[in-house]
Amino acid sequence: MNPFSAIFVPDELTEALSDRAWLAAMLAAESALAAAQAQDGTIDPVAAAAVVAACDPARYDVAALAEQGRSSGNPVVPLVHALREQIGEPHAAAAHRGATSQDILDTASMLVSRDALRFVDSALGRIADSCAQLADEHRGTVIAARTLLQQAVPTTFGAKAAGWLVGALDAREAVQACAGRLPAQLGGAAGTLAAFGENGIEVLQAYAASLELREPDVPWHTIRTPVAELAGALATTAGVAGKIARDIVLLAQTEVAEVSEGDGGESSTMPHKANPTAAVLAAACERHARASCGVLFESVVAEHERAAGAWHAEWHALTTALAATGGAVDATARSLAGLRIDAERMRANVSEATLSEARSLGLAAERPEDYLGSADAFVERALARYRA
Amino acid sequence: MNPFSAIFVPDELTEALSDRAWLAAMLAAESALAAAQAQDGTIDPVAAAAVVAACDPARYDVAALAEQGRSSGNPVVPLVHALREQIGEPHAAAAHRGATSQDILDTASMLVSRDALRFVDSALGRIADSCAQLADEHRGTVIAARTLLQQAVPTTFGAKAAGWLVGALDAREAVQACAGRLPAQLGGAAGTLAAFGENGIEVLQAYAASLELREPDVPWHTIRTPVAELAGALATTAGVAGKIARDIVLLAQTEVAEVSEGDGGESSTMPHKANPTAAVLAAACERHARASCGVLFESVVAEHERAAGAWHAEWHALTTALAATGGAVDATARSLAGLRIDAERMRANVSEATLSEARSLGLAAERPEDYLGSADAFVERALARYRA
Amino acid sequence: MNPFSAIFVPDELTEALSDRAWLAAMLAAESALAAAQAQDGTIDPVAAAAVVAACDPARYDVAALAEQGRSSGNPVVPLVHALREQIGEPHAAAAHRGATSQDILDTASMLVSRDALRFVDSALGRIADSCAQLADEHRGTVIAARTLLQQAVPTTFGAKAAGWLVGALDAREAVQACAGRLPAQLGGAAGTLAAFGENGIEVLQAYAASLELREPDVPWHTIRTPVAELAGALATTAGVAGKIARDIVLLAQTEVAEVSEGDGGESSTMPHKANPTAAVLAAACERHARASCGVLFESVVAEHERAAGAWHAEWHALTTALAATGGAVDATARSLAGLRIDAERMRANVSEATLSEARSLGLAAERPEDYLGSADAFVERALARYRA
Amino acid sequence: MNPFSAIFVPDELTEALSDRAWLAAMLAAESALAAAQAQDGTIDPVAAAAVVAACDPARYDVAALAEQGRSSGNPVVPLVHALREQIGEPHAAAAHRGATSQDILDTASMLVSRDALRFVDSALGRIADSCAQLADEHRGTVIAARTLLQQAVPTTFGAKAAGWLVGALDAREAVQACAGRLPAQLGGAAGTLAAFGENGIEVLQAYAASLELREPDVPWHTIRTPVAELAGALATTAGVAGKIARDIVLLAQTEVAEVSEGDGGESSTMPHKANPTAAVLAAACERHARASCGVLFESVVAEHERAAGAWHAEWHALTTALAATGGAVDATARSLAGLRIDAERMRANVSEATLSEARSLGLAAERPEDYLGSADAFVERALARYRA
Repeated sequence: MNPFSAIFVPDELTEALSDRAWLAAMLAAESALAAAQAQDGTIDPVAAAAVVAACDPARYDVAALAEQGRSSGNPVVPLVHALREQIGEPHAAAAHRGATSQDILDTASMLVSRDALRFVDSALGRIADSCAQLADEHRGTVIAARTLLQQAVPTTFGAKAAGWLVGALDAREAVQACAGRLPAQLGGAAGTLAAFGENGIEVLQAYAASLELREPDVPWHTIRTPVAELAGALATTAGVAGKIARDIVLLAQTEVAEVSEGDGGESSTMPHKANPTAAVLAAACERHARASCGVLFESVVAEHERAAGAWHAEWHALTTALAATGGAVDATARSLAGLRIDAERMRANVSEATLSEARSLGLAAERPEDYLGSADAFVERALARYRA
Repeated sequence: MNPFSAIFVPDELTEALSDRAWLAAMLAAESALAAAQAQDGTIDPVAAAAVVAACDPARYDVAALAEQGRSSGNPVVPLVHALREQIGEPHAAAAHRGATSQDILDTASMLVSRDALRFVDSALGRIADSCAQLADEHRGTVIAARTLLQQAVPTTFGAKAAGWLVGALDAREAVQACAGRLPAQLGGAAGTLAAFGENGIEVLQAYAASLELREPDVPWHTIRTPVAELAGALATTAGVAGKIARDIVLLAQTEVAEVSEGDGGESSTMPHKANPTAAVLAAACERHARASCGVLFESVVAEHERAAGAWHAEWHALTTALAATGGAVDATARSLAGLRIDAERMRANVSEATLSEARSLGLAAERPEDYLGSADAFVERALARYRA
Repeated sequence: MNPFSAIFVPDELTEALSDRAWLAAMLAAESALAAAQAQDGTIDPVAAAAVVAACDPARYDVAALAEQGRSSGNPVVPLVHALREQIGEPHAAAAHRGATSQDILDTASMLVSRDALRFVDSALGRIADSCAQLADEHRGTVIAARTLLQQAVPTTFGAKAAGWLVGALDAREAVQACAGRLPAQLGGAAGTLAAFGENGIEVLQAYAASLELREPDVPWHTIRTPVAELAGALATTAGVAGKIARDIVLLAQTEVAEVSEGDGGESSTMPHKANPTAAVLAAACERHARASCGVLFESVVAEHERAAGAWHAEWHALTTALAATGGAVDATARSLAGLRIDAERMRANVSEATLSEARSLGLAAERPEDYLGSADAFVERALARYRA
Repeated sequence: MNPFSAIFVPDELTEALSDRAWLAAMLAAESALAAAQAQDGTIDPVAAAAVVAACDPARYDVAALAEQGRSSGNPVVPLVHALREQIGEPHAAAAHRGATSQDILDTASMLVSRDALRFVDSALGRIADSCAQLADEHRGTVIAARTLLQQAVPTTFGAKAAGWLVGALDAREAVQACAGRLPAQLGGAAGTLAAFGENGIEVLQAYAASLELREPDVPWHTIRTPVAELAGALATTAGVAGKIARDIVLLAQTEVAEVSEGDGGESSTMPHKANPTAAVLAAACERHARASCGVLFESVVAEHERAAGAWHAEWHALTTALAATGGAVDATARSLAGLRIDAERMRANVSEATLSEARSLGLAAERPEDYLGSADAFVERALARYRA
C-alpha cells in the first residue's frame, strides 16, 4: 500500500505483513521442518537443533535476501544459502532437507495470513460491537430509507445498523472459517515428498502440527483452493466494510447531515470542513482488497506442479489483500466508534412523501413512526445473532 | 455469453439462465408471496388463488417486459402491471402486495442460481469421478513433474489426477454449502415489511419456506454477503476447472503428447490437428466467470436501502458467472471423460535429470520409479476423501 | 447483457452486436478474401464470384453454426463447411482459401466493433452536445462544489457541466482514434500467409482495402495491441459516462434535489418516486464495460501463434464491452437530454460555510457569487474545444 | 510490490516510486506554485523565494507525514503544516496559497509517473532492440508455429520475434503519447481557482510551464481521463511483456528446449534446473499491473468535485501499476537480452504434420523451408517500422 502506507494500514498490521514478518514466518517453517524430521528420525537431533537455533530472524538481512532472490525468482533460495552458512558444517545440509522453496513460502504465507486475519477478525468484532450498540440504541430513531438514493419509506437507524451488523457477522464467519482451515504446505520438489522416502506423511503431520496449521490432503502447490477461499473471505469482508463506509459518507453529506465522524478530517484549505475521512479511506481500501483478491482467484489456474508466474503473483496480492482488507475494517471500525448521530436531523429529513406507499395501500399511517413494520423485529433478530 | 453462446454454455444451462427462466422465477416469487399472505390471513384466499393462477410464465412476453422495463430500470414494474392485468379485478391488487421489485428479482436470482448450481455441482461430480478413476488407474504411471514448466522430479499421473480431484472436491464443498444457504428476499419497499403491518415476519417465513429458500436474518437488499459467498464459490470452481484444463492443454502439446482429447477439435485448414478444444473452451470460460465474480464482489458496496447501479449490475454478472462457471466445469468434465492417456509417452518423456535431486541427496534411485516418495499415499488420501 | 438485455442496451446496438451481425461480418470477411484473391489472380474470378454470392447471411442458421462450433471450438469451422456447401462444386474450395479461422473471426470482430463504435461515438456526441448546452446556459448558476461529498466552495453548474464535457471530448477522441485504426486480420494458419505463396502481402492489402480496415504490419493473431487499445478507449468512455451518471444520481437525491430526470423511473410500490433511472442504468453498464475490458487486457498474454483460451474469451468480452459501453453512454445521453435543472434549489443549497476559505484568505466575498474565480473561464475553454 | 519487492522491481524504479520520490514531487509542485504566483504578482517574491527554499525534501520526514496524514486522509495536509513551519513567519502563508491537497498530489503523481514512464519507455526500447536483432538474425530459422499449443505450420523464429517487436513498438507508442500529455493539476478547493481571483488561468499556465507538464483544459480532479489513458498504456505494455514472457516460458520447456535464459534461475533443491526466471517474474508483474490498472479505470467514476475514496485509491494503484509494468518490461528485456536460441532444436522439433495444410492445398512443399510464405516479408515490415 504505497505511497503513504500509514494513512491506510494500521501500524500493527503493517508490521504483521512486513518483509520481516515474512522472513520470520519462513524461518518458522524451516525450523518446524527440521524439528519434524528429527522427531521422525530422518535427521540427527543435534543437527536439527542447530537448524532451529539458526532460524532466528535477527541474523538475516531481508533486503539483501530479496536482492539475491532476483536471479532465482524467490527469496527462499538465498535464505537457504544464508541459513546453511549460519548453521555451518557439519549440520548445514540438515536445513531445508527435502523441501522446495514453495513449501517454505506457502507455509509462511499461511502463518502471515493467520496473524493478519486475527487483526481483521478483531476489527470486524469492533464493527459488530458498534453496530450492535447503534442498532439497540436507535431502534426508535426514525430515518428515511433511501432506494436509488431517493427517499422511499421510513425505517429506523437501528434497522439500518442491524443490516450492517449482519453483514459484519457474515464476514466474520467467513474469516473465522478460513482462519481455522489454513493449511501447512509440504510436498518437496514436486509434491511427492520423495526426499523423505517412506516417511513423507509422518513428516508432513509433525510439521503441520507443530505450526498449528491444517494438514492438507495433498500438497496444494498448484491446487490453490485454500488461497481462493481466503480471497473470497477477504473480498467479502472488504465489501461489507465498504458498504458501511459508503452509507456513512452519504449520511454525512452536508445536505443530509445525519451523522458525522467524531474526528472529522481537516482540509488543507477549508477550515469548516469535517470530512468523513475514515469512511473515505475504507472505501479506498476496499478497492485494493477486491483487485488483489481478483489476482488471487486468477492464480488458481496454476500450471502443472508449480505455476510459472501465478504463484509469484500471489505474494504481493495476498499481502495487499490482507493489508487493504485490514485497512478497510479498521477504518470502518474507527468511523463507527466515533460516529456522532443526529437523531433529530434524521427525523426532520423524513419527507412527507415517504408515507405515499402506506396511503396507496389504504393504511392508516399519520406519521413515519406509524409505518415501520418489522423494523424493530429485524433489529431483534440481528442482535440475537450477535449475542449468540 | 455472446456471440455463439452454444459453443461455451451447454443448452441445459443456457435454458436455466434464460430470460424465460428468470421470468418463471419471478412469477414463482410473486406466487409464493400471495400464498404466504393468504396463509397469514392478510390476503383473501380467493384473491391469492387468482394471483397464483396468473403466475403462469406462458402468459407473458419476456422480451416485451424487458423493453418496458427500460423506463423503470427493472423488469418487475412492467411484470406487476401485466400480472395485475391477467388477474383482473377485483383481485388485481392482491398481487405483489407489500413487496418491492428487489424482493421479487433477488428471490428470482436465488431460484435461478439454485438451478444453475445444480448443474455446476453435477459437472463437478463428473470431474471428480473422472479424476478419481484416473488417480486410481494411473497410480503407477510415471510422469515428469514440472515446475515453472521445467521437468523437476518424477511423479505419477495418478498423483497429478489426485491433485485435480482434491481441487474438484474443495470446489464442490463450496458450491454445495452455498447452494444450501441461498436466502429468500422479502423486505418491502425498504426492508421494514411495513405493508404487512404486524405480520411481516410470519409472511417472510411462509414465503421462504414455500420457496425452499433460507429465511434471512434481515432483508439483504444491500447486505450482499449471500451474493459474495456465491461469487467466491463460483470463482473458485471456475479456477479449479481452469487449472485442470490448463494442465491438459500443456500435456497435449505436440512436443509432450502425453494426453489428447478423445474428440479432438477440427481445424479449418489443418487436417492433422486434434486440438484440445474442450480444455481451451474451459480456459475461456474461467476468465468470464472470474471477471463476473469481480463485478459481484464490487456490488457488495451498495448504497443505503437499494443500490443505485450495483444491484442492477448483478443480474448480468450473476447470470454470466453461473453460465461461464457451468461452461468451464462442463467443458472440463467432457475433456476428462474422453481423455486419452499415453502412459508410455509419459514415461518416455521423463528425463534423466529428474533424478538429480535424489543424487544430490545421496539417495539410491536408479530409475524414476525409485523416487516417487509419497505419491501413492497422496492418491490414497484423495480417493479416501472422494469415497467418503 | 442477460437477462433483460433491452433494459440496458439500445435495440440498435443489440442488433449491431447480435449473432446475426457477427455472422454477416464473418461472411463479409470470407467474401473480401475471395475477391482479393481473384484480384490477385490466385483464384479464378468465376469461383470468387460464386463465393461472394454465397456470402449472404440469410442463407445460414447462426444458432446451428454455434452448436456445431462446439467441437471445433469456434464458429468458423462449421461456417466454412456450410459456405462450401452453398457454393457447391466445382468452386467450393475457393472459399476460405489460405485463411485460418482466426483471420475470419478477428476481422469480423473489427467490423462489428466498427459499427458499435459508431453508436458509441454518436452517443458521446449527444452527451457532449447536452453538456455544452448546460455549460453555456448555466455559467451563472451557482452551486455548491462538493469534495468528499461535503460542501466546499461555490462553483457554477456550468463549470460542472464543462468538466463533464471535457471528459466526453477526451473519450470521444480515444474512440475515434481507435475506430480509425481497426486492422484487418489475415495471416493464414499461423501468420505466414503460406498458402498464398508469393502473393501474401498483395492479398492482405486488397483484403484490408476492400473492407476499409487498416492493413496491419504483421498478423496480430497473438499480438493483441489493437484489442488492448479498444479496451482502453471503451473503459475510459464507460468511466466518463459513469462519472456523469454518478453526479446526476447524487444531485437528484431527495435532500439535494437540484436535478431530476425528465422521465423519472416509476417504482413498483411508491407512487411518489421519480428515480434517476437512466443514470442508474449507466452506472450498472459501466461496471460490465470495465470488467469486460479487464478480460480483453488479460487476453493480450496470448500463447505462440494462437492463444489457447485467451482468444476465445475475447469474443464475449468484446461484445459485452461494446454493449455495456454503448449502454452506458446511451443512458447517460438520455439522462442528460431530459435533465431538469433546479437552479434556484442549487443556489439555495449553498451553505454559508462555503465562503470560509475566502474569509480565511482575507478575501472580500460577501456572497457565493463573489467567489467563483475562473469558473467561467474554464467553461469558455471547454466550449472552445467543443466548438473546434 | 511487497513482500520482497526487489525480486520484481528494479532498484532504480523502486526509488522513482518511493515515498521519498512522492515527497520530492509534492514539494516540486508547492515550489512551482509559489513561483508561479510570484511571477504573477500575487505573492511577494521574497515570500515565494522562502517557500521555494523550504521545498527541500531533505527537511521532511515522509514516514511521519504519512502517520499524520491518517486523520486528514492525505499527506498534503501535514506537509503544508510542516512546510509552513519550515518557512516560518512572516512568509508561511505564502505556501500552498490557493491550492487544494489534490492539486499537489495529482501534480506529484504526474511527476512521479513521468519518471517511471521514462524507465518503462527505455525498457521497451531494450525489448525492441532485442526483438529486432532476433528478427533479423533468425529470419531463416525455421520453427514450428503453434496454435492452441499444437504444431500448425512452419514459420521462422524471425517472424515470431517480429511479432514481439510490433507489440513492443505499439506499446511504446502508447507510452510515449501518454508521457507527452501528462497534465499539471491546479484547481484550488474545488476547481474554480477562486483564491487566485482574476489571475487563476495565468497562475495555472505558469505553474504547468515550470513543471513541464501539459496545461489542462479544466481541472481534472474528477475528470480522470488522463489517468485512464495512463492505465490503458500501462495495461497494454504489461500485456505485451507478458505475451513475450509467456512464449519464452513455453519455448524453454524441457520437452521443447528451443530457448533458455542465459542466466537460468537456480532451484533450492534441483541442481539441474535452469528456470526461465526473468520471464516468470514478468508474468507475475503483468498480473499486478493489470489489476492496478483496473482500479484506475474504476476511479474514473469520481463523485462531484473530489471523489470520496476513488481518488485515494489511485495513489497505490498508480504506484503499483507503474512498478509492476516496469518490472514486467525490465524482466522481459533481461530475459530477451540473454536468451540462448537453439536453432537446430527449433528445426528438429518441426513435425512432418506441419506440411499437411500445404499438401491439402496441393502445394509442392517438400520441407518446412518450402512453406514459409510471407514470413520474411513480415520481418521486413516490422524491422522497417523499428528503424523508422
